[in-house]
Amino acid sequence: MKIIIVGATGTMGKHLVSAFEKDHDVIKVASKGADIDVDITSTESIENMYQQIGPFDALICTAGPTFVGPWKKLNDKEFRKGIEGKLMGQINLVLIGQNYIAPKGSFTLITGALTHEPQLNFANASAANGAVEGFVRAAAIELENGIRINAVSPTVIENSPQYFPYFPGDIPVTMQQLEFGFRKSVFGANTGQVIKPY
Amino acid sequence: MKIIIVGATGTMGKHLVSAFEKDHDVIKVASKGADIDVDITSTESIENMYQQIGPFDALICTAGPTFVGPWKKLNDKEFRKGIEGKLMGQINLVLIGQNYIAPKGSFTLITGALTHEPQLNFANASAANGAVEGFVRAAAIELENGIRINAVSPTVIENSPQYFPYFPGDIPVTMQQLEFGFRKSVFGANTGQVIKPY
Repeated sequence: MKIIIVGATGTMGKHLVSAFEKDHDVIKVASKGADIDVDITSTESIENMYQQIGPFDALICTAGPTFVGPWKKLNDKEFRKGIEGKLMGQINLVLIGQNYIAPKGSFTLITGALTHEPQLNFANASAANGAVEGFVRAAAIELENGIRINAVSPTVIENSPQYFPYFPGDIPVTMQQLEFGFRKSVFGANTGQVIKPY
Repeated sequence: MKIIIVGATGTMGKHLVSAFEKDHDVIKVASKGADIDVDITSTESIENMYQQIGPFDALICTAGPTFVGPWKKLNDKEFRKGIEGKLMGQINLVLIGQNYIAPKGSFTLITGALTHEPQLNFANASAANGAVEGFVRAAAIELENGIRINAVSPTVIENSPQYFPYFPGDIPVTMQQLEFGFRKSVFGANTGQVIKPY
């Protein structure tokens, strides 16, 4: 299977590349330093990425920039970080990617528990996650040719201990649990699901 | 109670104005033709609205423009209708309005069942709703001075029969049910809730 991993140089992406490249043709994509560079806030850059890659079977996105910081600093300008990044970035990967993906292919996007379990400093991510999850359910009934779409929604992940203080009481998701969440989406038959790998 | 109703000239807004103005000081706001005009896609226009109104006790928003139409026409540009309107428009009403609202005041935003029950042609609304609902839960734990925030999430409403064909099998929410949803948010004590008035 030819699998694109966007965010391949990040904590989640690196693990997934290593997990999937034994058995699959993995195309590593990131903002820089991967096989192919992409700026997911630019539709032109996304289109260019797909043109370079050609037909593929699955796209995984683990890239989702948002504003993290004090509520008092959250304004229209800062909110755009999550709107352009985690929200429109991922949605445009699908809206454009549907023209390149093989029949019965799949898109798997990243959200997170913050959609329903907010934490201080992360309102921008809660909103972006909620949008992506609503989009995933809606896109699932629109996409043709058997193309599927799901989101994986972890809590804080074990390899990002710098975030633990912001998620009091959240049991970290292991990298293996996270990987299994993506496996369920890519190799399973579900669509329109928000997969909680815990 | 001094209550701002944004979207006061629309189907929902007109009903709420008439229901609340007997007992409260209702400020009618809309894009045009109300007491005060506002363009919710402009932070400057929102700021200007609040400056004209001064301190208030509750803001209700029933205005939420989104792109409605065939999936094949949904691209980055069309998606922005919901992003700038129902999503950032409502979020900016809160981010800016928190500087004008009275202690123990409330914000009540509009979402809809499409967040979890998608229908063809409405992917943009599903995403905008999901974002607003995630934001409501996150803002509820950030807002200070006892300020509350909720969303009201109806299905198709009885006074908009033109939408019935797009919502097969959805039992329309009556105008009274809708009104009760807003009453629960404005006059109750809940915060961070998505109120389903059915």
